[in-house]
This record gives sequence, structure tokens and C-alpha cells, in this order.
Amino acid sequence: MIRDAQDSVCQALEAVDKVGKFKEDVWSRPGGGGGISRVLQDGAVFEKAGVNVSVVYGVMPPEAYRAARAKSTPVFVFYLLCSQVLHPKNPFAPTVHFNYRYFETPRQWWFGGGTDLTPAYIFEDDVKHFHSVQKKACDKFDPTFYPRFKQWCDDYFYIKHRGERRGLGGIFFDDLNDYDQEMLLAFATECANSVIPAYVPIVERRKDMPFNDQHKAWQQLRRGRYVEFNLVYDRGTTFGLKTGGRIESILVSLPLSARWEYDHKPEEGSEEWKLLDACINPKEWL
Amino acid sequence: MIRDAQDSVCQALEAVDKVGKFKEDVWSRPGGGGGISRVLQDGAVFEKAGVNVSVVYGVMPPEAYRAARAKSTPVFVFYLLCSQVLHPKNPFAPTVHFNYRYFETPRQWWFGGGTDLTPAYIFEDDVKHFHSVQKKACDKFDPTFYPRFKQWCDDYFYIKHRGERRGLGGIFFDDLNDYDQEMLLAFATECANSVIPAYVPIVERRKDMPFNDQHKAWQQLRRGRYVEFNLVYDRGTTFGLKTGGRIESILVSLPLSARWEYDHKPEEGSEEWKLLDACINPKEWL
Repeated sequence: MIRDAQDSVCQALEAVDKVGKFKEDVWSRPGGGGGISRVLQDGAVFEKAGVNVSVVYGVMPPEAYRAARAKSTPVFVFYLLCSQVLHPKNPFAPTVHFNYRYFETPRQWWFGGGTDLTPAYIFEDDVKHFHSVQKKACDKFDPTFYPRFKQWCDDYFYIKHRGERRGLGGIFFDDLNDYDQEMLLAFATECANSVIPAYVPIVERRKDMPFNDQHKAWQQLRRGRYVEFNLVYDRGTTFGLKTGGRIESILVSLPLSARWEYDHKPEEGSEEWKLLDACINPKEWL
Repeated sequence: MIRDAQDSVCQALEAVDKVGKFKEDVWSRPGGGGGISRVLQDGAVFEKAGVNVSVVYGVMPPEAYRAARAKSTPVFVFYLLCSQVLHPKNPFAPTVHFNYRYFETPRQWWFGGGTDLTPAYIFEDDVKHFHSVQKKACDKFDPTFYPRFKQWCDDYFYIKHRGERRGLGGIFFDDLNDYDQEMLLAFATECANSVIPAYVPIVERRKDMPFNDQHKAWQQLRRGRYVEFNLVYDRGTTFGLKTGGRIESILVSLPLSARWEYDHKPEEGSEEWKLLDACINPKEWL
């Protein structure tokens, strides 16, 4: 079933890109399990797009277990993961990320994941569309989900040392096991299925907009922040680095290129400043 | 005294660059202390060059104290730091980094730091020259220093999740307090003073070599590894992020730009492969 989802996501993205094709790597993990990584690099629309599925089982090292914030002694673990990061070339087309996972140990199980939007420039209609699709997916299951998981997303993607968020949020939850298991599986599946309808209309609108070197440099700076969050704070990445996971699959979320300028400060009131302001002070988009 | 060193280093680097000039930021830390950051960005030779000095005093948070691997309860701390990272534009000109620091708490004091070379391509003469200057500085104080600190450097700059080092090493030591304090101060000063003679002849030789897009892309990939090491493993950086230090001064070590390609593997026997091989299997250069 998750293989089908991977197929349909990749087909939808290739249809947007028209030029780039996904290359597939099938890998297995010595401790148990394996995955399928599909990556499209240097396409017409996407600089780098990664769509992964993996299944891992085996004994979890204590460090990794702590990174996954589990409450009991490490034993046998099983998890299922699908994730995707899309970094488009055009600085007006936003990056999108999703990641849904199911964990199981002999004593407990939980769901986690989310979908979030990271533009370099704000187009309010785009952000509203994205959040409204996330809300619709949530509302099918529980009206408290969207406000709760929207807040959780704003809290999670926080780059503490910068005092700003990676992007404009979406939904995020983790360690979720206080609902019916079937219901949560259906919910996570609904969320994963709503990534394409939330994102493709946006990238279609923005992919051919004219831009200049300043726009591109600002996008690259924001990608630098993306790298900072993923390497320093992201639970999935730090968990992967600690468990000795397949490094290329873990770090496929990093952008093709990124930039760090010393003490860069956008001019107050500029388009760049507006994005930064929304990353510092999260907004209600709906 | 360290202000003089900063002046002379910046003058030497401006003389190499000819176009770029250092911009200075003087900052103070609310908890006590402050520093002077000097950055040259987008010069003719250097993409980004940062030369910092700082003095910090105050109470150290427990987390930071653990990151600094101290052995007793956190109390008052004082430290003095000088550091420099130079990222040249030309992919045949190597990056160099140094960082020397002195820590003092009411119960103990220690010295730490090092100087290391990170090229994208190996020119054996360059690497030998660099290591021989480091060895000369060490030999003035103790003949056991170079072999010991060379090994320490190879061990320290290890990117565990990649199984490779950030570069080709140099010297590194930390928590050093089992020698005479005056002697260690003289030694750290000697090390700091030998960065320019170790590095400038190399960058002069390489800065105008013709290169193509493939060479540049490989340099950018290696800079991606630099970012991975600094954000995930470097004690100075993780210490700075945890103590809420001045973020622009801490992350000035990151390159202006970097690149991540999915599953990039240089062809066996190529120049790129030789560099990677030396990062995986550290060599004795002298």
C-alpha cells in the first residue's frame, strides 16, 4: 500500500517537472528491514526531490531510543516510515516536507509525523490553500486535530538558536497512541494522501515566475536554515544518525545547495522581512 | 595582545585577497564579556573569511558545561577564544580553520584548540608544508606534541555518520592542563601565530588556478561535509548553540555556500576519490 502511494506521488511530481525522472535505490539494513529511496535531482522544476519508504525492525540502541523519547527500556522495535522533501528551483515555489511513521515495540506503539510548507516568499493564497487542505484532512477525523497539530508544528520546527521557525508550518504530531489504532492509521494515510493536492497547485503557479539573483540568494539563505534545523534539531535525522541508518536516505532531506551570509538582515517591510517575520511570529492562516 | 594578533591576521589576509576588506562587529554578551568579529565576504580570493576574538565570563549553564566535558559542578567560568575560518573561492585552494581557547573556573583551567586544513583536492606539497609548520610549532615545546596532537586532530574531525574526516587534519588538543600554565599559553600563542605562515603560501599558489564547474561542484560537496561536522559534532559550535552565544559569531565558520547531492560517489582513482580516500584513511604527511 505505501509502495502504491510512493508510485503515485512520484508520478505526480514527474508530471509537474516534465524533465526530471526519479531514480530508485533499494537498500536493506543489516539489523533488519530496508527501504526504497527515490530521488529526482536537477530537474526542470525541482532542484532535489526525495520520496522514501522504509521498514525497519531490530533492536534499538539506547541513544536512539532516547532520541525517540520512549518511556521504557529499549527492546525490539519495528517501524514504518514514508517521507518526502521537495526543493524546487524557483525561489517563489516553496519547499514542502512530509514524514509519517509508525513505531511498535513489544510494550507500545505510536504514530508520528506531519506535513509542512517552507517558502522563501509568502503568497498568502498559497499558504491558505496549503493549510486548508491540512485542516480538511484533520477535520475528517477530529475537529480538535487541526488547531492542536498546527500549534505542535509551529513548536516543533523551531530553530532555537535563531529564535525562528524553519517555515510556515502545517501539521505535526508525535508519540500519538491515545486514539484507536485503526483510526490513526487511516488518519496518517489521509494526511499522506493530501500532500499532493496541497502542494501541486502551488508549485504549478510559481514554477515559471521570473526571478533575479537576489531572490535566488534569499532562497539559498533560507535553505541554510533548513540545513540547520535538520542537522541540529530534527528528531528523524538525529535518530537516523544515531542508529547508523542509511546516511544517503537520511540526509536526502538536505537541499541541493544552501548559503550562509554573515549577519544578513532583510530590510524592514521588504518581502524577505515579511517571510522572516512570519517565521518568528507564527500566524493563523485560516 | 590577541587584538594585535587579530589585526595582523586580517592584514595578511587582505593582502592576499587584494579586493575584499574585513568588516568588524563589536558585540557584548548580556551575561558578561563580548567579542570582536571580523568577516570578509565575497572577496576576490575568499568566499568567506571570519576572524573572531572573544572573552566570556559568567555562570555556565549545566548543558554547556557538559558539552565542554568539565568534571565538576558548574560555577563561574571565564574563557578567551580566538578563531578563524577561511573558505577560498578557488576549489584548488584549501579551507583552513583554527581555534584556540582558554577556560577557567574557580577550581580548574584548561587550554584547547587546533589548526586544520580542509582541501577539496590534494596537492601533496601543500599538505606537507602545512603539517611541517604545525610540527615546527609543536617541537619548540615538546617533541611528543606533534604526533599526539596530529592523531587527536584525525580523531576529532571525524564525521561519524559518514565514516570520514572533515579534512586532512593538522593538530588538535583539548582539556589540556597537565603542563605549566605559562608554557601552554606560549604554546597556544605559537600555534596561533603559525597559521598565517602555514596557510598563506598555499593559498597564493592555488588562488588563480583555472578550474571548471565540476571542480567547483566537488568543492561545494566537501563544504556540505564541513557544515555536517560543524553542526552535528563540533564542540565549539554545539557549546555556542547551547550557551545562547552570539549566533552570527558561532556560525561564521559555515561556508558561504554548500551542496548535497544524493549518493555522490567519485570514480575510483580520480582526484576527488584521492581526497575522499585520505579523509577516510588518515595519512602521515611527514
